[in-house]
Amino acid sequence: MLTPNEAKMQTKKSLETLMPIGTAQEQIQGAKEFYKYMFSHHPDLRKYFKGAEHFTADDVQKSDRFDKQGQRIQLAMHILADTFDDEPTFRAYARETINRHRQYKMAPELWSAFFDVFVNFLQSRGKLTDEQKAAWKQVGEVFNEECQKHLKTLGLPHV
Amino acid sequence: MLTPNEAKMQTKKSLETLMPIGTAQEQIQGAKEFYKYMFSHHPDLRKYFKGAEHFTADDVQKSDRFDKQGQRIQLAMHILADTFDDEPTFRAYARETINRHRQYKMAPELWSAFFDVFVNFLQSRGKLTDEQKAAWKQVGEVFNEECQKHLKTLGLPHV
Repeated sequence: MLTPNEAKMQTKKSLETLMPIGTAQEQIQGAKEFYKYMFSHHPDLRKYFKGAEHFTADDVQKSDRFDKQGQRIQLAMHILADTFDDEPTFRAYARETINRHRQYKMAPELWSAFFDVFVNFLQSRGKLTDEQKAAWKQVGEVFNEECQKHLKTLGLPHV
Repeated sequence: MLTPNEAKMQTKKSLETLMPIGTAQEQIQGAKEFYKYMFSHHPDLRKYFKGAEHFTADDVQKSDRFDKQGQRIQLAMHILADTFDDEPTFRAYARETINRHRQYKMAPELWSAFFDVFVNFLQSRGKLTDEQKAAWKQVGEVFNEECQKHLKTLGLPHV
């Protein structure tokens, strides 16, 4: 088990290497690559993206919407890493994420499953060390724990 | 001029003392206090809150909407502090904040003015040290700089 600060450092490092954030074309493209990966490897998840239910990776590539969507999820992952040593803020961010996704009626098990998809995506971009994998596992577990707790508080389906 | 890490530590400290985040009643109330303060001291800003244009501090207190709104801004301020030593993420968060507020057509000078309101709010809750004040000034300046740059990129009014 890593300390929260170690887990933060390891996840940050993996992001800075494999999914750096910024306004340069390659950083925007890197963000979009996540959805190209997700839509190719987990086509069942496309149903949560109204109007893009039948999108291929090529459709994602051509879409302005997925430029924006990619940058949003890229930012979210950087925020999760940055706040992991500040548990109250990290947990508040998890709750806010649930609030913002309420309208999409997502299956509650996806909040945990997402981290497997994300780590597999990172691994498709380059090598993750064992410590980085362990760090993402920890981050995903705490995030999911707070998500399920908050879903329960809201009277919504949870696991 | 503080280093980004010093500014982060100072702003975090002021938030942990004067606006801690969490699900306890006093933390939710503390978040709501910001809007009670803003609506009392800057009633002109109420126009950005549709349906609450004539709200008093008492109306805010009774409102579930401002429970949620308070928690959102509380989280935003904690995220700004937490990410200030990770400039690309901090700046990406500023841009995302602009994207999310686009629909409200806010006057561009408010992105800077907000930090004065916020620091005055914190000071209404307890003492800020000179270093904490300097830290918030720095955070506000970088945030505003990125906001104005992004507004310009989007072809929107900026200062």
